[in-house]
Amino acid sequence: MNDETAILRTLELALRGSGFVSPNPRVGAVILEYGEIIAEGWHKEFGGDHAEVAAIKSIGRESFEGCTLVVNLEPCSHYGKTPPCADLIIEKKFSRVVVGMVDPNPQVAGSGIEKLRAAGINVEVGVLESECQWINRFFIKHIKTALPYVMLKYGQTLDGCIATSRGESKWITGAESRRRVHTLRSEVDAVIIGKSTAITDNPQLDVREVEGRNPKRIVFDTDLTLPLSLNIIKSECGNTYICCNPNAEKTRKAENLRLAGVNLIPVEVNEKGMLNIPSALYAMTDLGIYSLMVEGGAGILSSFAKSQLIDELQVFIAPKILGDGKHSFESYNTNYLKDALNFKIRAVSKSGDDIHVISTFY
Amino acid sequence: MNDETAILRTLELALRGSGFVSPNPRVGAVILEYGEIIAEGWHKEFGGDHAEVAAIKSIGRESFEGCTLVVNLEPCSHYGKTPPCADLIIEKKFSRVVVGMVDPNPQVAGSGIEKLRAAGINVEVGVLESECQWINRFFIKHIKTALPYVMLKYGQTLDGCIATSRGESKWITGAESRRRVHTLRSEVDAVIIGKSTAITDNPQLDVREVEGRNPKRIVFDTDLTLPLSLNIIKSECGNTYICCNPNAEKTRKAENLRLAGVNLIPVEVNEKGMLNIPSALYAMTDLGIYSLMVEGGAGILSSFAKSQLIDELQVFIAPKILGDGKHSFESYNTNYLKDALNFKIRAVSKSGDDIHVISTFY
Repeated sequence: MNDETAILRTLELALRGSGFVSPNPRVGAVILEYGEIIAEGWHKEFGGDHAEVAAIKSIGRESFEGCTLVVNLEPCSHYGKTPPCADLIIEKKFSRVVVGMVDPNPQVAGSGIEKLRAAGINVEVGVLESECQWINRFFIKHIKTALPYVMLKYGQTLDGCIATSRGESKWITGAESRRRVHTLRSEVDAVIIGKSTAITDNPQLDVREVEGRNPKRIVFDTDLTLPLSLNIIKSECGNTYICCNPNAEKTRKAENLRLAGVNLIPVEVNEKGMLNIPSALYAMTDLGIYSLMVEGGAGILSSFAKSQLIDELQVFIAPKILGDGKHSFESYNTNYLKDALNFKIRAVSKSGDDIHVISTFY
Repeated sequence: MNDETAILRTLELALRGSGFVSPNPRVGAVILEYGEIIAEGWHKEFGGDHAEVAAIKSIGRESFEGCTLVVNLEPCSHYGKTPPCADLIIEKKFSRVVVGMVDPNPQVAGSGIEKLRAAGINVEVGVLESECQWINRFFIKHIKTALPYVMLKYGQTLDGCIATSRGESKWITGAESRRRVHTLRSEVDAVIIGKSTAITDNPQLDVREVEGRNPKRIVFDTDLTLPLSLNIIKSECGNTYICCNPNAEKTRKAENLRLAGVNLIPVEVNEKGMLNIPSALYAMTDLGIYSLMVEGGAGILSSFAKSQLIDELQVFIAPKILGDGKHSFESYNTNYLKDALNFKIRAVSKSGDDIHVISTFY
């Protein structure tokens, strides 16, 4: 097995931690001896063993002389919730280490690699680096900016409609696209919807079609007008958050929502009475939310477009023509092409009968 | 070389006739001896040698005993502009014939294959049939319905805008997408645009970015209000056609346009004063137009959606967000998802920085 194949395997393993390790990165590790995998491990949950430790523990051997440790992210060199992995790797006498990418965390940032090299270990860095960065894009964004990674998701027709003129939107896209959306939900810390979507669609925002953990559910509802009968308030409401203006937070309605178990997040409003997106994002990081997926409707998608705080688009396109329906960003005003938000395409694939486009902000 | 690879080669050859053979099909032929290609031919232009004849002539041999003739469409069995190819194949003593698809032309429809088999030739039928049907979809439509094949093309952003709110549309998509559009133009008999697009974009509607022949250029202009200064009227106007209402055809403006060299096509109008799409299509077949590409804007795209006479969508999607811009089918009214026009995806690919989606009507 060559280094690239081994790194691909670490990424598969790393994905098993999706949803459970945040704000830590997703990391997998394999140990190779004579080119064959003899042990595997991954970071299973926040506070748990790092991937390297898990792989080493899984086989219970004192010395790994002649062996290669392969890991998608640089081994840590600092004391965090666990002792430094670099020290353990040295102690266990690995001969070679393959690292997908350098850890952008300023507490690591190459020092783990230096430590290994100083101990005489042969270290290879930057194998499938772009893929390794992709799997930990949430972590990288959060470490570098202290803001959560913002993904926008919408399903539309081939002429750009997210609903008919009368608001019907279930279902524009097909079963496979919904399954992919549930997988995405299982990876992000939270999903966000606007008030109208909460009322019109009355969604559950869970991951029932895949294995994984449900994300936190956030609704933008400036004046707290949501009925208590909604699915997201009736069930698992400890997992439900409403962003509202600070005045609304003091009303009787707020009290009722709190009694029902819902969490309220007061957020500054702008002169038009809309929640301020940067303030909302900072409030979310205070709650340990480092990645989120905005699921519409057009009002909240447009607000995020105005804020220019979009990292990624996940667009599902059904091969249908709906004509004069509703459009995803119809409240985002632009006059000229130079005002457009520019993305680049990361991946395009068929999703059942639909098209799935992943784009990142330029 | 196996049969499939040989058929793929015939399709490559067949494409060389694009734009020149209509209303005939695009056909290529190769002759195999001991599994190797010893001769190739293709139908070069309407009235010219059929592909089989071209391949046979290219090598000048009296007998092809032991050889296989491979052709993407069934050899003809009737006297048309040329004698029947089936007779020539028998006369030349081919041992085996591989046919991509049966000819849907009722004058052939399997009789060419029967004739070959009756002469003792081993005939294989239906190799890469779907690909063979795709390359001759214009021909199949025309033979089966007497209507032209209708392709709709538009370039839009990832939120479905074909122009900004102020009408700016040059250029939403990139250079590679424009090149692909020019290739499509070189394949269809005619391109159609609406009056507003003719005036706002003042396009040339030619194929200057690729090799090939320019299509006929058709504008829908009910009341003949187009200025004579437009590019499509100033240059090569013998190639320009305007569909207008029958009354407009008798005006002084009509006289001026005719003097300038433009062709006028009178077409029935409906109660709203819009040109009747089926009538326009029948008028086009009278002019020898059997395939066409509608290039927008939203008005004419919407008219075609209402007519339900769309065979194919060619959509180019730039990874941009434009918000409250113009949408491709915004004058096509639907209320419910059940009213949507349904397509299926034939192909999705990257086109430079854009996405290129080809869909066919369900």
